[in-house]
Amino acid sequence: MPGADVGPQAAQRPAGFPIASGWTGEVADLDPRATPGFEGRKADGRALLARRDATLGELQERLYAAHHGREGGRSVLLIVQGMDTSGKGGIMRHVVGGVDPQGVDIAAFKAPTPAEKRHDFLWRIRRRTPAPGIIGVFDRSHYEDVLIHRVHGWADAKEIRSRYTAINAFERELSEAGTVIVKVMLHISRQEQGERLMERLERPDKHWKFSPGDVDEREHWDAYMDAYTRALRATSTVGAPWTVIPADRKWYARIAVQQLLLDALEGIDPQWPAADFDVEEQIDRLRATMD
Amino acid sequence: MPGADVGPQAAQRPAGFPIASGWTGEVADLDPRATPGFEGRKADGRALLARRDATLGELQERLYAAHHGREGGRSVLLIVQGMDTSGKGGIMRHVVGGVDPQGVDIAAFKAPTPAEKRHDFLWRIRRRTPAPGIIGVFDRSHYEDVLIHRVHGWADAKEIRSRYTAINAFERELSEAGTVIVKVMLHISRQEQGERLMERLERPDKHWKFSPGDVDEREHWDAYMDAYTRALRATSTVGAPWTVIPADRKWYARIAVQQLLLDALEGIDPQWPAADFDVEEQIDRLRATMD
Repeated sequence: MPGADVGPQAAQRPAGFPIASGWTGEVADLDPRATPGFEGRKADGRALLARRDATLGELQERLYAAHHGREGGRSVLLIVQGMDTSGKGGIMRHVVGGVDPQGVDIAAFKAPTPAEKRHDFLWRIRRRTPAPGIIGVFDRSHYEDVLIHRVHGWADAKEIRSRYTAINAFERELSEAGTVIVKVMLHISRQEQGERLMERLERPDKHWKFSPGDVDEREHWDAYMDAYTRALRATSTVGAPWTVIPADRKWYARIAVQQLLLDALEGIDPQWPAADFDVEEQIDRLRATMD
Repeated sequence: MPGADVGPQAAQRPAGFPIASGWTGEVADLDPRATPGFEGRKADGRALLARRDATLGELQERLYAAHHGREGGRSVLLIVQGMDTSGKGGIMRHVVGGVDPQGVDIAAFKAPTPAEKRHDFLWRIRRRTPAPGIIGVFDRSHYEDVLIHRVHGWADAKEIRSRYTAINAFERELSEAGTVIVKVMLHISRQEQGERLMERLERPDKHWKFSPGDVDEREHWDAYMDAYTRALRATSTVGAPWTVIPADRKWYARIAVQQLLLDALEGIDPQWPAADFDVEEQIDRLRATMD
């Protein structure tokens, strides 16, 4: 699409750091305290997050301007998975929250309702894929159907494999229709989760975030790590790669997700759309209405 | 509901300013450059907006914690109306954007689609009213059906009156179900609109926001002011009062809307919900899982 490339230029945008997408290893082998690709410490990370916030906002506005309302327009879908307390809410507040809320659509997928259960597991997911020009964000997703379902045996190995196939077909279709898919697993240690749950128990203003079931689920930690390893290996495709993000350091997880979103948007490289009217003529018309 | 009142206290919250809701006057009589209730200037206003952002965030989190997922829980609905360029988008970015996006649901109502037109004018509106615990925001609303429809004669006086009645009944029902309704008209001068449209024409990165029809609509300015005056008078109720906010100074309009949202939330006064489990017992259980 032809467009006027004005406003902040790519060259003026503050630099980020390289982050590799795609994952085929064992999740448990990745150190949850690592900060891959980033040399700095906490204060540097927080400064980077703030500095790149405006860049993310500008790219989101360009995406909206160039693609919203257009048949076949581009969009971004960020899928966030992770164990309880892994920091999904913090990603929503501190990374996604920096963007104009008019351009973002967050969907939180909890346990399916009876109505949702009557449909295929992708039914409720398809209804929330982002419109052109929009950054869609999934807080949990269709991946729950191959993670918690495997861990608790709610689906057998054959069924899980058939879901991988359905997921890959669905995501390929989405990607071919113009959506850049960014999938992240926020990877924390079992020890870190214990400390974060303890904080929820020690602060009355955090009790509402705790459920006794959270302690029960910790018993299945290794089974979850195994389920993640299998699911990520089966569904990390060229068009929709997974990134496992070490998340014991919240500040790192946030700049990493921000970086992936920036990479996705810079890949689309949306341009301000050219005017579909004669600018000088409209300036004259407008001037005639002013006293 | 019994709850633990911990975390930032009301007494520690930074003070705001008094703003009167309810409107029965002529919109055109209100000075769009006024700053009613606020003594300060631009820098003070911007500082206030930033200072109260955390308070708004804290109250929103309490609302979510106390009411989300509850049958009959409370919610807030902010309805934003105003002429083109009156600053609705800025309210979304700078006031609503300060809140955790997981607790907010923004609906932008544009010209209805053919499918929407086959239904009653409140049909698409009802589908987007906020769930318990959520702050819903309407960027334009069902009021377009008594504003632009009156100005362009798409509905006659009798039909408009019947829509007022339907709106009041709908909003009363919503309010009785637990939603606090905040309705604002961002009031700019015709001169200010001309300057803001000119800026859109002069900046290529703003061309996408301009449409030649915006200039045509300026011809109907007085008719719009009259339509607003009539609509606000007919629908400013005790349960859902209108506030006309002078909006030539963007910074003032933003602190005024923020103040109204804070007043709405403080009226609900949501409390952190009490734990529905034995806290000490869960601490012991959790500790047993930690090495």
